[in-house]
Amino acid sequence: MTRTANKRDGELRTGRVTVRRRPQRGFYDHETVAAILDATFLCHVGIVVDGQPYVIPTSFGRDGRRLYIHGSAASRTLRHLSRALPICVTVTLLDGLVLARSAFNHSMNYRSVVVLGEASLVEGEEKLRALEIMSEHIIPGRWAQVRAPTEAEMRATSVLKIDIAEASAKIRSGPPLDDEEDLGWPCWAGELPFTVERQPPIPDPKLPAGVAAPDYVTAAGHRPRPDSAR
Amino acid sequence: MTRTANKRDGELRTGRVTVRRRPQRGFYDHETVAAILDATFLCHVGIVVDGQPYVIPTSFGRDGRRLYIHGSAASRTLRHLSRALPICVTVTLLDGLVLARSAFNHSMNYRSVVVLGEASLVEGEEKLRALEIMSEHIIPGRWAQVRAPTEAEMRATSVLKIDIAEASAKIRSGPPLDDEEDLGWPCWAGELPFTVERQPPIPDPKLPAGVAAPDYVTAAGHRPRPDSAR
Repeated sequence: MTRTANKRDGELRTGRVTVRRRPQRGFYDHETVAAILDATFLCHVGIVVDGQPYVIPTSFGRDGRRLYIHGSAASRTLRHLSRALPICVTVTLLDGLVLARSAFNHSMNYRSVVVLGEASLVEGEEKLRALEIMSEHIIPGRWAQVRAPTEAEMRATSVLKIDIAEASAKIRSGPPLDDEEDLGWPCWAGELPFTVERQPPIPDPKLPAGVAAPDYVTAAGHRPRPDSAR
Repeated sequence: MTRTANKRDGELRTGRVTVRRRPQRGFYDHETVAAILDATFLCHVGIVVDGQPYVIPTSFGRDGRRLYIHGSAASRTLRHLSRALPICVTVTLLDGLVLARSAFNHSMNYRSVVVLGEASLVEGEEKLRALEIMSEHIIPGRWAQVRAPTEAEMRATSVLKIDIAEASAKIRSGPPLDDEEDLGWPCWAGELPFTVERQPPIPDPKLPAGVAAPDYVTAAGHRPRPDSAR
């Protein structure tokens, strides 16, 4: 039996991340969590300062069982997080609205992940590698073409890592679940799916004429990485 | 002079919500905040339990200077929040990637709002009205057609309100901002815009034949409410 033979009793599960409402929607195996993380690059990071929670949107990258986020070394948030305080990283993919006959049974289709842990500063060789991982997570192919960070830029950037050791995924999909006695209610019912679509790229006005957009810019959609389940 | 004559010195500003990094991207007036809130219905709610932050995705509705969220009366999160503890509600619209010549100057275009406050339980007549507001915020036109909540369903649902009194918006748009000396770097640079698109509705398999989807289901895109700036 592999460690992840049972996705609902997986190795990332603790009491704190267990899905209690609608437990059939909870998953605790690395493969399910990683696949959701790799389908986007936007997360919401939760921290506590003087008892007040703050939720901050930022981009992230994943390398195996580790998440990376980054920001200005001067940022209050980053300096706060680097003190190994508890954080929460949440990723949400909204797949659609679920329109039931009853107001009560309306829902959303989504895939979400909650990772609990402590962030710590990344230093030394891992730091540049982490920036490359974030860049390739967000837009594969870009890193090799851009001007690499200078030493001053590296000093001005803080990179934080969070291990994916305590986490859960929650997934809802499919049609509405109306009560039997509501099925005859005279209104339309079903799913209203959403997708995130790339629009045509807008060249920088300062770009010299004749510089073509590379494939990774013109390709449609954010593609999960081929190694998404490792 | 109106209260919001200066969007960057608006009436929602406190030290805790002030944008310190890139202050030119911060706005503190109700109109800017409301317009971003009304362009989506997904928020990320941050709470603290035993010192640990949790970030939970959920839908919301807005009525003037008040936000509503809801959930099961049995939910740990909702029960926790109803004790008037500090919370953070964050809304993020990701508008695109910003591809600069240097790795360092890569960015995202986005519109985000952070609301700090305390949640409190909604009871009595306001509760049903709040559920209607949430429904109409998410999908205008739906509430009048669905089977209204029963008393038992109302008891099983908790509704919370958060006043929009301490909040900021942060907005980035436009092309990359490369350093002058990088402008000749030989790679493409510009914006890669994203949009959220509605896909064709999927009727519930249990829907009788011949029930047409109403206009609010077939119309493309999530439209901001006409009163978005009130």
